[in-house]
Amino acid sequence: MRIGVLVFDGVEELDFVGPWEVLSYVNKVGSGPLELITVGVGAPVKAFNGLTIIPDVTLGDCPELDVLVVPGGKGRLIQMHELKTLDFIRQRYEELSYLLSVCTGSFLLAEAGILRGRSVTTHHNAFEEMEAYPDITLSRRRIVRDGKIISAGGVASGMDLAFYLIEEVYGADVAASVARGIEYRRVDP
Amino acid sequence: MRIGVLVFDGVEELDFVGPWEVLSYVNKVGSGPLELITVGVGAPVKAFNGLTIIPDVTLGDCPELDVLVVPGGKGRLIQMHELKTLDFIRQRYEELSYLLSVCTGSFLLAEAGILRGRSVTTHHNAFEEMEAYPDITLSRRRIVRDGKIISAGGVASGMDLAFYLIEEVYGADVAASVARGIEYRRVDP
Repeated sequence: MRIGVLVFDGVEELDFVGPWEVLSYVNKVGSGPLELITVGVGAPVKAFNGLTIIPDVTLGDCPELDVLVVPGGKGRLIQMHELKTLDFIRQRYEELSYLLSVCTGSFLLAEAGILRGRSVTTHHNAFEEMEAYPDITLSRRRIVRDGKIISAGGVASGMDLAFYLIEEVYGADVAASVARGIEYRRVDP
Repeated sequence: MRIGVLVFDGVEELDFVGPWEVLSYVNKVGSGPLELITVGVGAPVKAFNGLTIIPDVTLGDCPELDVLVVPGGKGRLIQMHELKTLDFIRQRYEELSYLLSVCTGSFLLAEAGILRGRSVTTHHNAFEEMEAYPDITLSRRRIVRDGKIISAGGVASGMDLAFYLIEEVYGADVAASVARGIEYRRVDP
């Protein structure tokens, strides 16, 4: 299973490192194998709070993915209007088993046009902005699933989203092993 | 207030990004200012689960710090024997207001010789290894404070450590604002 994690200038650090850590730990508890790669809009990428990352691949040379994680952060305000980013999400959507958004990453899915008629969540400060889309239903929960699109609320809830996916793909025991391993107390969705 | 976050090959991603995110958010809720920099043992740094980082400064050109965060991860097994890393921690110890360790980062403090006669915690899988140090007291709690050294248990507990520091420096209201902002449910130490 290969998981791509989108990174762009101004991405919020925990939005993408939270799921990255939780999903990576599946390998450590003896399940998987699960391959994680950062997919960069440009390189290097400067995250919102200053962390500088060298992405593993670019939008153009990204291999086939089973899962794509779209994080949020202030930088999403620019990415919402970057056609190559929106095209990437839209074009990859078909091949994916799961498309995950964390925090305001859900606005990239909205702008890519793949949330029409669907339910989604986002960071609580952006609830009203999401409700302004006439064809999208905002659900004010921590994790919202609609088909293969699973969205999380703000920042730290991306970790609970990753646990949700682990539970679905590998089962509750593996999810519990990961939570013990990283000493994380999961929050009910 | 300037906070240095040590990064090295094989550092566990959430060990350092957890505190990085939580502490950075102090600026977003209108407190601070709080400056965060990654201090690299070498550059770029490849974290244990594959994330590649460009550190802001090296051990050699790191400016004066108020707080140093020492994360863990498999790479600590090498850093425990890297004299320049241990010297850095030992030499900076005097100038620091707080020295924080996350997960197995506590072993770098132990090897630097600054835990003698002190209490500390670490990742639960490394409890016995820490207990083997004759002059260090292991305390099996999530957060352990001994003077200006504050240590956290495994991986995710580094976020609770960051909240502990925020509460001490900026007060409980700021800590609560940050927790609301990143939608994190704190775990009692």
